[in-house]
Amino acid sequence: MGSKSTAKRADALRSIDAIVQAAAECLGRNPEASLSEIARAAGVGRVTLYAHFASRAEVVDAAMSRAIDRGNEALDAVDLTGDPLVALARYIEVGWHLVDQARALLAAAQRELPAGRIRELHSGPAARVEGIIARGRAEQVFRTDLPIAWLVNVLHSVMHSAADEIRAGRLTSGRAADHITATVLAAFTPPGKPVPEPGAGE
Amino acid sequence: MGSKSTAKRADALRSIDAIVQAAAECLGRNPEASLSEIARAAGVGRVTLYAHFASRAEVVDAAMSRAIDRGNEALDAVDLTGDPLVALARYIEVGWHLVDQARALLAAAQRELPAGRIRELHSGPAARVEGIIARGRAEQVFRTDLPIAWLVNVLHSVMHSAADEIRAGRLTSGRAADHITATVLAAFTPPGKPVPEPGAGE
Repeated sequence: MGSKSTAKRADALRSIDAIVQAAAECLGRNPEASLSEIARAAGVGRVTLYAHFASRAEVVDAAMSRAIDRGNEALDAVDLTGDPLVALARYIEVGWHLVDQARALLAAAQRELPAGRIRELHSGPAARVEGIIARGRAEQVFRTDLPIAWLVNVLHSVMHSAADEIRAGRLTSGRAADHITATVLAAFTPPGKPVPEPGAGE
Repeated sequence: MGSKSTAKRADALRSIDAIVQAAAECLGRNPEASLSEIARAAGVGRVTLYAHFASRAEVVDAAMSRAIDRGNEALDAVDLTGDPLVALARYIEVGWHLVDQARALLAAAQRELPAGRIRELHSGPAARVEGIIARGRAEQVFRTDLPIAWLVNVLHSVMHSAADEIRAGRLTSGRAADHITATVLAAFTPPGKPVPEPGAGE
């Protein structure tokens, strides 16, 4: 392979990376950001953008994948072993900030991508929660009368609901993780068992 | 007032009513239904539609208001007095079907209307839930360590999350109300108190 094609390929990779980064930033501020705006922010022309991405949906998909990859890296640094109550509280503490930061980008994804694709992109974070829940069920601190997939969805719904409450000015970002943790630990408690007291997840 | 203007006004009311009904039906099938499609379904011309509605947002707002009015009528028929656990389970049983039926229309509203307006339109159903929760708090069966507004939002988030699970083919419509009730009654239980056994809300 000649050095010319190597250089061209390196150029293309740089352009793609710049476009995906610009898309994550622009869509993260405004879910309706246009492709021209994204190309401008990336410092490339529209022709270059269209050379690498066939549609707006492809750009949104790449930006969302990037955000999720970053999220997975952040979650890699969290100790999710040990007491499932503590592990879940730690997951919420970090995961909540990721959801909060990515909410405009997620709004763009919900307009452009099928629900199944959004679910697929979230399979990394979802697998971590599933692991914590399965351990909590084995230790009889989490309920087994509802499917794991349902419990994962409840956690993510409550996280997104906190983002809505903040947007409505009815919740501060600083209190969100506590509200989510108190709600979800109760929702996951087996029928007949007492709901954990606050601080059980600390 | 002459009989001519009375007749004209009656015509206008009939057109508006036909447009709002057609909008609720068309948007309820497809949140991206066009105004031309809605005019056609209402049996009026586009000019007539634009004579009564200044924008797509106004049409969506009127359709959503209509769906909520119908929902409020359905909820009027439900006995929400007595044991707060039973009252909440009854609210979920009826409210869940309303959410499920209106999910495409709500998707249209989320694209066209500000979040504050959607919240305002839901103030009737929200007030009923607030009433049940306040009674449950007074009777010490629901938690008081989280704000009422947060608990209302949790209930509605879990309902919408059930709609997502059904769309993903992971939950049947018939089991949704049970899942929602079991989850929300646990989420609302005061820390230190046992989560109600299944059937507590029957």
